[in-house]
Amino acid sequence: MTAQRIDGTVTTPLGFTAAGVYCGIKKPNPVTHPLDLCLIASTGGPVPAAAVFTTNQAVAAPVVLSRDHLSRSGGLCAGVVVNSGCANACTGKAGMVVAKAMAAAAAQALGCDDDQVFVSSTGVIGVPLNLEKIRTGITAARAAQSVEGGQDATRAIMTTDPFPKSCAAVIDTPRGRVTVGGIAKGSGMIEPRMATMLGFLTTDAKVAPAVLQAALRRVCDETFNAITVDGECSTNDCVLLMASGVSGVEITDPSDPALVEPLRVVAGHLAREIVRGGEGATKLVTVRVTGAESLADARLAARTICNSPLVKTAIHGGDPNWGRLIAAAGRSGARFVLDHASVRIGDIDLFDDGVPFDERSPAAADVLEQDHMVITVDLGTGGRDEATMWTCDFSAEYVKINSEYRT
Amino acid sequence: MTAQRIDGTVTTPLGFTAAGVYCGIKKPNPVTHPLDLCLIASTGGPVPAAAVFTTNQAVAAPVVLSRDHLSRSGGLCAGVVVNSGCANACTGKAGMVVAKAMAAAAAQALGCDDDQVFVSSTGVIGVPLNLEKIRTGITAARAAQSVEGGQDATRAIMTTDPFPKSCAAVIDTPRGRVTVGGIAKGSGMIEPRMATMLGFLTTDAKVAPAVLQAALRRVCDETFNAITVDGECSTNDCVLLMASGVSGVEITDPSDPALVEPLRVVAGHLAREIVRGGEGATKLVTVRVTGAESLADARLAARTICNSPLVKTAIHGGDPNWGRLIAAAGRSGARFVLDHASVRIGDIDLFDDGVPFDERSPAAADVLEQDHMVITVDLGTGGRDEATMWTCDFSAEYVKINSEYRT
Repeated sequence: MTAQRIDGTVTTPLGFTAAGVYCGIKKPNPVTHPLDLCLIASTGGPVPAAAVFTTNQAVAAPVVLSRDHLSRSGGLCAGVVVNSGCANACTGKAGMVVAKAMAAAAAQALGCDDDQVFVSSTGVIGVPLNLEKIRTGITAARAAQSVEGGQDATRAIMTTDPFPKSCAAVIDTPRGRVTVGGIAKGSGMIEPRMATMLGFLTTDAKVAPAVLQAALRRVCDETFNAITVDGECSTNDCVLLMASGVSGVEITDPSDPALVEPLRVVAGHLAREIVRGGEGATKLVTVRVTGAESLADARLAARTICNSPLVKTAIHGGDPNWGRLIAAAGRSGARFVLDHASVRIGDIDLFDDGVPFDERSPAAADVLEQDHMVITVDLGTGGRDEATMWTCDFSAEYVKINSEYRT
Repeated sequence: MTAQRIDGTVTTPLGFTAAGVYCGIKKPNPVTHPLDLCLIASTGGPVPAAAVFTTNQAVAAPVVLSRDHLSRSGGLCAGVVVNSGCANACTGKAGMVVAKAMAAAAAQALGCDDDQVFVSSTGVIGVPLNLEKIRTGITAARAAQSVEGGQDATRAIMTTDPFPKSCAAVIDTPRGRVTVGGIAKGSGMIEPRMATMLGFLTTDAKVAPAVLQAALRRVCDETFNAITVDGECSTNDCVLLMASGVSGVEITDPSDPALVEPLRVVAGHLAREIVRGGEGATKLVTVRVTGAESLADARLAARTICNSPLVKTAIHGGDPNWGRLIAAAGRSGARFVLDHASVRIGDIDLFDDGVPFDERSPAAADVLEQDHMVITVDLGTGGRDEATMWTCDFSAEYVKINSEYRT
């Protein structure tokens, strides 16, 4: 029983409609992303929902409100309204007033309670969000709502992402077919003061909120929480999963592959797409850490390698610099035994059981010329735990994008 | 009783000689740093010494050996031999054999026990160190040993540092004058696989090894351990402090200002010089974090801000982007209260008690045009703990330096 990835969005699973409109929050950019507000709705009223949020303590008003709503509603959600172009972050008490009014307008349009609405914003930090434009946008989005609206919704949450990110996955079980769909936006920070990753997922499985939350958290740890572009965790990050139940396939165990498998396919694909579209990125790098004494150690070493500027610049330059990989693993805090550590780039063993093989460098350099590569670092402890994370290379373009605000 | 910084090196305090020679380890570069081996010696035989070492578990042979020597000798050291051009790191058992032979050769030259010698190497990782060249260099350095040799010693430990780093400090106490001197090298990684910070300090105070160690650790936490260029902790980092006792001023308390004050002046200056000479750096940034609930929280937030690529690129571009500073503090893990947080650039309050003042951005941008600036972030907890760290800006030149190995 394996899940297959297919083209699709949040409206591919049964029971959801969506729309994307332009309401004037974002500077108009007809070529790349002319839309700036989306509404995703359950067609059957409030349904079970689960979410994970940024751990940044400088948290934006819509994140605070949505976390509160999901708790008050007992994990039920009728729809989500998202705007791009303004993050409504660091906007003080006035920002919370606007977030609440945005939720109330969406609740009125959807015919549900305020706390059954999820609100999300992405864009510039520290700028007030124009409520009148948002209200006009919600009215227009409600009118445009359809099962064909998924692509417009995908484009409406983009800020300066180089491409839209969406997909779906299906799995056929003895109990019936389950579909999961999702859209996401990532990090392209040509516009200043913007740093947000958003993901919106849907499924037609029948799942209670607590089970849905457990399944989402488990999958996020291996997908959205396993990527990094620059180690920065933003003020607005969140991932929402809604379950319509329309497929009739009931899930009662959060590790049930009928839900977890397609969810992992969709979340994993969207997560890697975010890295591939990272600022200045030219390469997608899979970093696999093996030989760890614990899963926590494996993840710590993988995260340190993925965020190391020296590792990321070496990959950018096509330099199979195993010394930087070893040094990053060694400083990560994970237990590390140099004499038994190994580094493999693609299938080239550059450093094996503590011994370098520099004559293999040219072959490893060829691997680094590709768009996507796998780097494996063994911590040499003899432990059996491992973890995989995804990162991108670090280019001068990243510095250019993020330092040329005033020019 | 305050310490005054003066020009000087490790031979400025009484009781030390030094020499720097060229023995063929480093590729000859007559313009910038033509020397590659230095010997610093106590003129009175073994004296109390203290050291702090890298916490990287991928630790180089000379670090392992020197830590062991200092422990076996009961904290006594007659001299230190340092080579540049080869780090003797990730060189396996053969690397340890060379490090031991290097110590033995220096011990023979100095007329002391092997374990009374401190050994240090900096340069390329994963390349064997040529013992015959080292032995020739030690003989030459012993012959050239003098109280005028401090400047040559400073240049002999450089790799691709843009300038040599040395200074001294004096303090006049009722018990007499105490002098501290030091040399350091930092991070200029035009040559690949090299990442090392070394510091060698001397004093003429009379101090027992345990007191010296406590004083050194305390000062290092506020100086060498409070700087960052790129968040990378190398395989070879170490700082050594030797105390000749020749001044006759006896120190029995590790917090005695007669030792701590001049030590802080020397270590602080050398640490900031390392940042100023960091890869691609154009600006020295002092980051002060206030309003923390604990010293650990203050340091955590300061370190996160100092290593944030978004903060460092904004400073490079002259962008007073308080949102990135707030987001970095918020994700650091330190307790943070957004509604009472503040950001000050120079003396411009850009974000105060949770409220932005964007009309002050042009004045703050002027501050960022300078070579050195102070950025203060208050975590808004009402706590009274604070910490200061130093970092540099992040330029495209950094990426160029570290990615162009193969071109």
